[in-house]
Amino acid sequence: MKVAIQGIAGSYHHQAATALFEEATMVECDTFEQLAQSVDRGESQAGVMAIGNSIAGSILPNYGLLQQYQLVITAEYFLPINHCLMAIAGQTLKDIEEVQSHPMALLQCKPFLNDLENTKLVETDDTAAAVMRIKRNHLKGVAAIASSIAASLYDLEIIAQDIQEEKLNATRFVVVEKASQPETENSNKATLNFTTTHEAGSLSRILSLFARKGLNLSKIQSIPIPEQPFLFSFVVDVEFVELQMFKDAVREVKSLTKEFNIMGIYKAATL
Amino acid sequence: MKVAIQGIAGSYHHQAATALFEEATMVECDTFEQLAQSVDRGESQAGVMAIGNSIAGSILPNYGLLQQYQLVITAEYFLPINHCLMAIAGQTLKDIEEVQSHPMALLQCKPFLNDLENTKLVETDDTAAAVMRIKRNHLKGVAAIASSIAASLYDLEIIAQDIQEEKLNATRFVVVEKASQPETENSNKATLNFTTTHEAGSLSRILSLFARKGLNLSKIQSIPIPEQPFLFSFVVDVEFVELQMFKDAVREVKSLTKEFNIMGIYKAATL
Repeated sequence: MKVAIQGIAGSYHHQAATALFEEATMVECDTFEQLAQSVDRGESQAGVMAIGNSIAGSILPNYGLLQQYQLVITAEYFLPINHCLMAIAGQTLKDIEEVQSHPMALLQCKPFLNDLENTKLVETDDTAAAVMRIKRNHLKGVAAIASSIAASLYDLEIIAQDIQEEKLNATRFVVVEKASQPETENSNKATLNFTTTHEAGSLSRILSLFARKGLNLSKIQSIPIPEQPFLFSFVVDVEFVELQMFKDAVREVKSLTKEFNIMGIYKAATL
Repeated sequence: MKVAIQGIAGSYHHQAATALFEEATMVECDTFEQLAQSVDRGESQAGVMAIGNSIAGSILPNYGLLQQYQLVITAEYFLPINHCLMAIAGQTLKDIEEVQSHPMALLQCKPFLNDLENTKLVETDDTAAAVMRIKRNHLKGVAAIASSIAASLYDLEIIAQDIQEEKLNATRFVVVEKASQPETENSNKATLNFTTTHEAGSLSRILSLFARKGLNLSKIQSIPIPEQPFLFSFVVDVEFVELQMFKDAVREVKSLTKEFNIMGIYKAATL
């Protein structure tokens, strides 16, 4: 089975995909759009895509990609992120003049990096790509922030570990496929996208309906539609005990929304 | 008056600050945290900070900075973003081998950049910083994505304009200060942060209250609190016709929330 990931071996996407699919060939993609295209064209049977993070919030453009390529969410996975600082062996923190990593990883290690004086920060496409480049070019004085797996895979030495600001920093990954999986009795979570008119109370009516039907809200985000200033689009995750509760709610909610789209029905994961 | 911005002269922050403050000395900051610190320490009387974008959504870490440094929002401003591709004079699109810009600008011009084959994309801290560096080092074959103002300020030639994906791409900036401005009759919008228990319907009860009191929701986003999995934090913008409506709603909403914080009361801006 071929699974598209963003980044290369040793990336956090690779870790998430390995946990989700025991035997799979990874299709390494440079960008999230290439990942979506790979699944859309059937070059990969599934994709594993980061969709949000406990610090930076949702990766909103990825919701847009799922809609653009009409992909559905069939599973989710929370990966605890433990960032390590790594470099060519034999160096200490004092030798490091430059730190390379993905912008999200640099952001998550901000207090640690603020304490390093006179250190240049360089953004890269992928955490593991920085590690590989340092090894290949034997770059001294340059460190990367990535997972401990990337350090062992590319044979760099870990100088500092667990350097992220929040002790519990998790990234939420979703499995995306071209067609829905048949719903099972295990399905207890759904991701929805809907549009309401900009009138006081239209969202609260929808959320009350969900509450009445026993649906628990686990995420909500309004998405501005600048070219249509009186419309609002929302991405919402709901959890439920029985699939029938969800189906009942969906039947009624459609009359309260202008557009209503189920982005996926799947089994909720825990951290 | 000293106003802290993120980036240098010619950056979009600079443009927003110039529109908001007619006569001000800009305090150029490398990072959003330095901007917040400059205002916190009184080195600047105000800061102008990007807080969201119509494509990428909220800049969630900036809400965190406002809370960390206890800054209040006193105004908002929407800046329409028209990205231009610019380079040393005398070059055409075919000469460009590398495009530099802020990750957000690169993201916003994705379809345009996808059409350029064999072009390397390089992320920089600031759109205008890339422009300045290209000019200073007379870099041929390298283009930057930035505003037309940056092109004229640093004397680069515009090769292509309005290259962003969405015709109407706007960034929302807020003015942040150390202390609230006295509310005026003009105040008709507020940014709130509150925490609810994770029970079905607790958010819908709050939103119904807002609707009943005549408050219009213009933004909502749930923020995960990973270390406290049964609590939810929300950032909400509400608009109202009379300040008294808002004050009435606030008095009642406190009993429905665990923590409730007014991040600012100000006059709503339009695009």
